[in-house]
Amino acid sequence: MKNELQVFNSYSGKKEVFKPIHEGQVGMYVCGPTVYSDVHLGNCRTFVSFDVVYRYLQYLGYKVRYVRNITDVGHLEGDEDTGREDKIAKKARLEQLEPMEIVQRYMNGFHEMMKVFNVAAPAIEPRATGHIPEQIEMVQTILDNGLAYVKNGSVYFDTFKFAKEKNVYGTLSGRKIEDLIAESRANLKNQDEKNHPSDFAIWIKAAPEHLMRWNSPWSVGFPGWHLECSVMSTKYLGEKFDIHGGGSDLKFPHHENEIAQNYGVCGAAPCNYWLHGNMLLFNGKKMSKSDGNSIMPGELFTGQSSHLTKAYSPMVVRFFMLQSHYSSTLDLTDEALQAAEKGYRRLMEALKVLQEMTHTGGGSAGALDKEINGLIDLASEDMSDDFNTPKALASLFELVTKINSLKGGQLSFSDLTPDTLERLKKTFNDFIFDIFGLLAENFDSSGNGVVDGLMQLILDMRQTARTNKDWGTSDKIRDALKELEIVVKDGKDGATWSKG
Amino acid sequence: MKNELQVFNSYSGKKEVFKPIHEGQVGMYVCGPTVYSDVHLGNCRTFVSFDVVYRYLQYLGYKVRYVRNITDVGHLEGDEDTGREDKIAKKARLEQLEPMEIVQRYMNGFHEMMKVFNVAAPAIEPRATGHIPEQIEMVQTILDNGLAYVKNGSVYFDTFKFAKEKNVYGTLSGRKIEDLIAESRANLKNQDEKNHPSDFAIWIKAAPEHLMRWNSPWSVGFPGWHLECSVMSTKYLGEKFDIHGGGSDLKFPHHENEIAQNYGVCGAAPCNYWLHGNMLLFNGKKMSKSDGNSIMPGELFTGQSSHLTKAYSPMVVRFFMLQSHYSSTLDLTDEALQAAEKGYRRLMEALKVLQEMTHTGGGSAGALDKEINGLIDLASEDMSDDFNTPKALASLFELVTKINSLKGGQLSFSDLTPDTLERLKKTFNDFIFDIFGLLAENFDSSGNGVVDGLMQLILDMRQTARTNKDWGTSDKIRDALKELEIVVKDGKDGATWSKG
Repeated sequence: MKNELQVFNSYSGKKEVFKPIHEGQVGMYVCGPTVYSDVHLGNCRTFVSFDVVYRYLQYLGYKVRYVRNITDVGHLEGDEDTGREDKIAKKARLEQLEPMEIVQRYMNGFHEMMKVFNVAAPAIEPRATGHIPEQIEMVQTILDNGLAYVKNGSVYFDTFKFAKEKNVYGTLSGRKIEDLIAESRANLKNQDEKNHPSDFAIWIKAAPEHLMRWNSPWSVGFPGWHLECSVMSTKYLGEKFDIHGGGSDLKFPHHENEIAQNYGVCGAAPCNYWLHGNMLLFNGKKMSKSDGNSIMPGELFTGQSSHLTKAYSPMVVRFFMLQSHYSSTLDLTDEALQAAEKGYRRLMEALKVLQEMTHTGGGSAGALDKEINGLIDLASEDMSDDFNTPKALASLFELVTKINSLKGGQLSFSDLTPDTLERLKKTFNDFIFDIFGLLAENFDSSGNGVVDGLMQLILDMRQTARTNKDWGTSDKIRDALKELEIVVKDGKDGATWSKG
Repeated sequence: MKNELQVFNSYSGKKEVFKPIHEGQVGMYVCGPTVYSDVHLGNCRTFVSFDVVYRYLQYLGYKVRYVRNITDVGHLEGDEDTGREDKIAKKARLEQLEPMEIVQRYMNGFHEMMKVFNVAAPAIEPRATGHIPEQIEMVQTILDNGLAYVKNGSVYFDTFKFAKEKNVYGTLSGRKIEDLIAESRANLKNQDEKNHPSDFAIWIKAAPEHLMRWNSPWSVGFPGWHLECSVMSTKYLGEKFDIHGGGSDLKFPHHENEIAQNYGVCGAAPCNYWLHGNMLLFNGKKMSKSDGNSIMPGELFTGQSSHLTKAYSPMVVRFFMLQSHYSSTLDLTDEALQAAEKGYRRLMEALKVLQEMTHTGGGSAGALDKEINGLIDLASEDMSDDFNTPKALASLFELVTKINSLKGGQLSFSDLTPDTLERLKKTFNDFIFDIFGLLAENFDSSGNGVVDGLMQLILDMRQTARTNKDWGTSDKIRDALKELEIVVKDGKDGATWSKG
């Protein structure tokens, strides 16, 4: 089967055939945002990447239970494991707010941004604070299994003992336990509670000023950051599920520690396939606010940044992200966005042209027919090859050339069967909307077609003016549309328009 | 102070001057939706009502911590207190889904609907499942205080003992404990665990098939429905806060039991003011699916209902709700919506006219000036009189008449100072957008003014055609706009348009 789905498994470091645990069903867990500030563009890329994974799995016919969490407690400032103040509580004191007000504000902002990028909502979006009893129970189980120890009210996972018992710790991130110990020894402050520097907290005793706190058998405190994902993935997907995803920056320590915890509880790894999205660079470098080399999603959409020559729409940015493979680094630049905008428009215009195409009947299944069917097959094969969106887009753009040639008359419908035209239409529709999750931005966003209707009237009047050689009117129309950044293109079958 | 805020307190049954516990700050808790089905229009009305309360308190300068919960567990089917299956779990089995998938789907749908109605997000939106440890702690405290008892793993609040100790139970809903006992005796099945029929469960032992369950000192089970609101209001607003709101159907048993629980824990009532929104009727009767006398929000917006002659926009429906006081029943009918649509448009058109008005300078503070200032004052007094939106709207509509007369020339700017015109503009802006939370719907919803720009071009060409007696073109424009439901109105200063 050519179209068998293959995924790159970060754990094995190899591309593997995807085999779900339960036929026809996929359980997928992706690490969601920590909601203590506005969502970064790099996070948006990660969630767009896994949105495409989610959409393509559904397109293949799988029933997907997609769980993406909200981290609303326990992500520590500085040294994640031993610091005594979590990022959310710190922000709360600065703004004189209840921590949950901070959480609510940024969670709402995150949801809005996901909508702007047309990222589909996951099936379940559990919150860390919503699973405190389950986290306390998991800590207890790990203690019972002898892989954790209590020190002054905090509980630490014993990585050293785990590494001795199972030769697993470090596999995902490609690190050796000895190196980890050496590494973290260099940075030892406040780590005196730990038996080994690579150990990590699964329950943390709260300092008196800490606002988020719960009772537990060990102390009034809060769960360690890594714990929540083990708890919520297990609760909603079971002890073993199919796919675990996240940004590549989470490989270590977060995902490595998740694996350790799951072994500590269930004696096995949580999932069969680990997928990691790669970093988003900006002008060739890591984004950094202090260097001034940074941009927020909102700035892209308004163009209010010294790094940009203009504003870019959310769908242009989404298209830009699709032009790269999820596991490759992606460099965001003004030039690259300009190119993406052209590409996005070219694709959407071809879709519009295609939608209006009708086959006159007849038509033979010759070379052109075969070529088009081949490209359609190729697009699916590209997607099944570890969700290779750039390759699938390349296949679609080869089809765009065919579509435009059919429209221009350089290619003939007589070399194409009506079935192939229908298949082409369905493919474009499926890929653009269902798989890539793009939206048609020049359609009136209120959905009532007012802009389309008004433009039809205006183009009609433009045609009449031209026929009557009424240049005054046709100039007036041209100028007004130019001001609204509406581009009119004259073709054989009349004028078409698009929004600049 | 004329403008002192007064609220009708359901607990005392009287209108009272509002005095916040902490100067300049308001803590407000409103019972949110149970997310096991699409949100009903009656709920939408409740949340729109408290949205206006929230907005007006902020307009008065209060810093408001508004908490509105999500009930995602424990709202039982049938007899709320003794049934053994909660509504969410039942739906989950029917649809073969994890209960949290149901919760997520309908919570997302609820959030979308709130956005459609332009209901501002609360500061904190806590979920019942996110506060299990706190609920278990509260059950324990009530047990420790001797106001609850354990029976077969479930815990019941002892209303009889509470009523004997404090003469409070039944005050909010105007019921006597003896009547409650008699009433519920008629409906006794499965109540044998209770000492008294009016007692209610605060912790419920889960039947084996129950999907949502947590460990507790008494059983693996789940919290009683009433408990979550006591827990979450106390956690985020303190043991005593200012305002507790909800639909009038929640007075008994929900709010009555909340009060009992708070006494059981803190020895005092949770809040100083209880506000209750009243019912939404449909064609003069209670909505009922089985009678066919029911309508969902989406059906209003599409017009897909045998009860409607046309579709109504969300802002028309919101305006319709504002035309009635929150504590009165409101009857939704097709005719009333048609009237609301006219009223909404008239208000928004006056706003547009007002925004474009300029004062030529001079102008005396005579009778007209006084009248306008008086109406402006009155609108605020109306709102401060228990959030009386229909009266405030009436004051605004008197001002609309003035605005239209100023535009038409029947009234003169020379009888008005420039300051009063500015005050009028600010008042309309504040009331329409900030207090009433309306949106200008005929503005292009994509926000880029494309529709406005195209309409300007079309009206311009229409004028030219008329001047040239080119009736063919002007007819074509008329027909095309009619099809798009765009209404053009010719006035002294040229044509204006609005979307039908």
